[in-house]
Amino acid sequence: MEERVWRINVTKREVTTESVPPGWERLGGRGLIPRSLIDEVPPTCDPLGPFNKLIWSPGLLVGHMVSSCDRISVGGKSPLTGGVKESNAGGSTGLMLSHLGIKALVLEGAPSDDRWWIVYLNAKGGRFDSADEIVGLGVYEAARQIIARYGSNIGAILIGPGGEMRMVAAGIQNLDKDQEPSRINARGGLGAVMGSKQVKAILIDSSGGEKPPLANLDLFKAAQEYYTRELLAHPQTTTYADYGTAAMAHMCDGFGGLPTCNFSSGHFEGVEKISGENMRDLLLVARDGEGQTTHACMAGCVIRCSNCFANEKGEKVVSPIEYETIGMLGSNLGIDDLDAIARMNWELNDLGLDSIEIGAALGVAAEAGLMAFGDPDCALGLIQEIREGTPLGRILSNGVVTTGRVLGVGRVPAVKGQALSAYDPRAIKGTGVTYATSPQGADHTAGLTIRTKVNHLDPEPQIDASRKAQTNVAGYDTLGVCAFGGFGFAKAPGAIRDLLNGRYGWEVGDDVLQELGKQTLSLEREFNLAAGFTPVDDRVPEWMTIEPLPPHNSVFDIHEHELDQLFDW
Amino acid sequence: MEERVWRINVTKREVTTESVPPGWERLGGRGLIPRSLIDEVPPTCDPLGPFNKLIWSPGLLVGHMVSSCDRISVGGKSPLTGGVKESNAGGSTGLMLSHLGIKALVLEGAPSDDRWWIVYLNAKGGRFDSADEIVGLGVYEAARQIIARYGSNIGAILIGPGGEMRMVAAGIQNLDKDQEPSRINARGGLGAVMGSKQVKAILIDSSGGEKPPLANLDLFKAAQEYYTRELLAHPQTTTYADYGTAAMAHMCDGFGGLPTCNFSSGHFEGVEKISGENMRDLLLVARDGEGQTTHACMAGCVIRCSNCFANEKGEKVVSPIEYETIGMLGSNLGIDDLDAIARMNWELNDLGLDSIEIGAALGVAAEAGLMAFGDPDCALGLIQEIREGTPLGRILSNGVVTTGRVLGVGRVPAVKGQALSAYDPRAIKGTGVTYATSPQGADHTAGLTIRTKVNHLDPEPQIDASRKAQTNVAGYDTLGVCAFGGFGFAKAPGAIRDLLNGRYGWEVGDDVLQELGKQTLSLEREFNLAAGFTPVDDRVPEWMTIEPLPPHNSVFDIHEHELDQLFDW
Repeated sequence: MEERVWRINVTKREVTTESVPPGWERLGGRGLIPRSLIDEVPPTCDPLGPFNKLIWSPGLLVGHMVSSCDRISVGGKSPLTGGVKESNAGGSTGLMLSHLGIKALVLEGAPSDDRWWIVYLNAKGGRFDSADEIVGLGVYEAARQIIARYGSNIGAILIGPGGEMRMVAAGIQNLDKDQEPSRINARGGLGAVMGSKQVKAILIDSSGGEKPPLANLDLFKAAQEYYTRELLAHPQTTTYADYGTAAMAHMCDGFGGLPTCNFSSGHFEGVEKISGENMRDLLLVARDGEGQTTHACMAGCVIRCSNCFANEKGEKVVSPIEYETIGMLGSNLGIDDLDAIARMNWELNDLGLDSIEIGAALGVAAEAGLMAFGDPDCALGLIQEIREGTPLGRILSNGVVTTGRVLGVGRVPAVKGQALSAYDPRAIKGTGVTYATSPQGADHTAGLTIRTKVNHLDPEPQIDASRKAQTNVAGYDTLGVCAFGGFGFAKAPGAIRDLLNGRYGWEVGDDVLQELGKQTLSLEREFNLAAGFTPVDDRVPEWMTIEPLPPHNSVFDIHEHELDQLFDW
Repeated sequence: MEERVWRINVTKREVTTESVPPGWERLGGRGLIPRSLIDEVPPTCDPLGPFNKLIWSPGLLVGHMVSSCDRISVGGKSPLTGGVKESNAGGSTGLMLSHLGIKALVLEGAPSDDRWWIVYLNAKGGRFDSADEIVGLGVYEAARQIIARYGSNIGAILIGPGGEMRMVAAGIQNLDKDQEPSRINARGGLGAVMGSKQVKAILIDSSGGEKPPLANLDLFKAAQEYYTRELLAHPQTTTYADYGTAAMAHMCDGFGGLPTCNFSSGHFEGVEKISGENMRDLLLVARDGEGQTTHACMAGCVIRCSNCFANEKGEKVVSPIEYETIGMLGSNLGIDDLDAIARMNWELNDLGLDSIEIGAALGVAAEAGLMAFGDPDCALGLIQEIREGTPLGRILSNGVVTTGRVLGVGRVPAVKGQALSAYDPRAIKGTGVTYATSPQGADHTAGLTIRTKVNHLDPEPQIDASRKAQTNVAGYDTLGVCAFGGFGFAKAPGAIRDLLNGRYGWEVGDDVLQELGKQTLSLEREFNLAAGFTPVDDRVPEWMTIEPLPPHNSVFDIHEHELDQLFDW
């Protein structure tokens, strides 16, 4: 299939395709988002208004089931941050779009009435089907009905009630290889943008498609084998298979950076009970049944960091439970109960909401006295308010900044309007630098530094650590490579170069990852500048610079002028 | 009394005084706010955090009961806009502070526990009294208890439950000459800043004070007489005495700019019933008793634009009802009933909230389906939610932007986070320019153009009209002169010059008003720039540039590059 740009126009209710515009050819994934926004979206527009667009783009390496390299990026102007937003996810969307030759899928225009739509895409084009039967449904039931109606080989991008209500903590979900709708482009409120277009789901039938062409099959295959071998040999791959991302709970607590009770401590008494080790013991030893400690979200992934959590009866509750969810709905709420976290996780997935943003909002709600820290029933009650669309539920589902403002709480963990994730910036200061300076708002996926070999409490090395992490991850996100695939690529020098040259017939060099990363970050900053961002936006919350964090009693103390120079490569 | 700066430090719980710092001597009122903020407040600070300050400053001419020239300015970094905010009001605060020689009163620091305070000021200094007995009370009852306890000659600055809850639609109230606590520094959420300092009231006993000295008594008195004569002779003074600001309802409707049903029309079918003419008929003809059509908020004012609204039994309901309240709680909610508007006005005064911001928020709530347009009982029910501090009430009392976001409504009338007042910018385009460009956020008091002799629908003359209006009013606000006093000064050339030279022994020239205005605006823009504002913030809402406003079906169509050049004097 020729690579083309597909457009879903909700004003005209039509799907069209066109050639790839100049300047887009050598971009993909996260890198294509700011390029297309700069080209097509007024940077000052209302993110939920007629001029914003949602753009899906598979990364440059997507389409060949290279392990951990088939991620889908989606982006637009964020209604949460007011700036550029890209969020990527696993699942089957990236692979299936690439098999239809879709370089970028652009959702644009404005609905003229109150009808909701399913947009169906296949090799011949696309059409608008009524979404009457699934609008208002949770993501799990909506996905079930979609699969029943359209067949089990369908790919699907969909939103839940949160996105339908235009709540800015809403994400966008994707089916995984097992047709589970839990691969979420979680951050930045992109689900609300999809809701503003009144599109409940985009379905992808790639049965008439094919893998993207390879310019040099041998070069590509050799690089793929080299990379896969190194990835499999990496000890971190085994850790992810055994414990998933949940292994981070102990690690982050050990550094004194595990958000606890609305970021009031970096150590959680109950960390053992919410750890990856305990989850593994529960699933492997205590509970027979549907639980899995290792599971792949994308076909072909050899890391298999995902999991499937089962209750005491061995029945599946949710898949996966990730560290961020454990941190933000667990320790950050003072909750040490994986079963409760799993139930909350399912509820938020079903509502189509970001568990980081909601976890942070619930932490602030607890500080306001709306729930006791450590009370999962109360937390579930607040999540039920979201489902019912009550005023309180709507406050929470608009994220942590709105929650703090409305409830009169000053200790709000957010940068650029977006909640911090589960690393306290006072203890993991490099990640704090990333939170502050990333064009994406507070987001650990934009440049996590916890594995960098530095003293995380020392301000000195953090700018460099964050710069490197941000540049690398922006490169990986542009390629469609999962961050964990990076462990393999780091041990397989030249593999990215050869994969790109093998795929496209280019002649890129060894520094292509960093070059792509810099290009992507520069484009993102260009968009944000035009949207009105200044260095003032590149700051952690004021209270984190003055309120010491136990147990190290550290504050965030990186100088502002250093933050402002981070991108002076 | 020597002019000094007084500081109320809530960290130390002490009141101190000091010499006027260099650079502050020739400033007062609105002009002193940005100067003191630049000197003392980090522009990027959390507006409700420990580093923000509230500064009260009487205007340069305050202290001698020159008609309409005793206004008090209060300002700080606004929690609503994130930028500089000054709000001025009548009442007795300006006069009494000036009689204690207070050039600026600075409220600063951060409370270390949950106690609330009354700060008592007299000629000997100040002290902290417990506010236990009045915290939580509405403004009217709190004022009654204060007067009962401290005597009927006291001046008072106080907040209501809205400010205590740190709701960013909260203002700060002042007693008027009749000890009525209804002179409100309404806009910008400054009541929330006072609440963040946990000061319920500041009392002023000026009995040991005296009028500020006059450098040239004869010059001052002659200018005062000249100005007063011209002011009394001006036809607009008679109109204000007869109808108050409510005369504007018919005028604005005539231009097709009266906000109606959440700014969906500029003409209101029920305008007659909410007009100044009807209010006058009601009070003079239909209703005997406590109603007054004319009333002075400050001692010595010859305009007497205030009023006292009485119900069918002739009992006083609220004083005053202003046009902005009529527009935002009346036509903007589809309500054509002055009795209902008066009840809502009393409730919002008692809660210590800005009726413009709440009127706009209720309009958005109505669009979201939470009330029917035209249903005052439902509107009063929503205001009752605010009083009870319910989640919905807290949403509304955080203003129109938060209300729109939480309720999922895109048609939000606001600039820089602050609600538009009762002039639709698509029909009164010069005022739209002011809304867009004023460093204060959307605020008609920053530069109303409806009396400028231009075609208000023609985009061409509006930049000039707004620039002139903004410059003049920034000058008047720095002098402590009510905008309506400007009618007199416009007919008495040289009077401002002579008043200033007579008061201070300066040698200012004829252009002093514009010079002060430019200086004030430049300082405000300097603070906002450092706080992270860019030209992107100087825009009316996107939807007002594309959605035509009946009856003229006009959109706001002033070019952005023209907006960006407005302050290139």
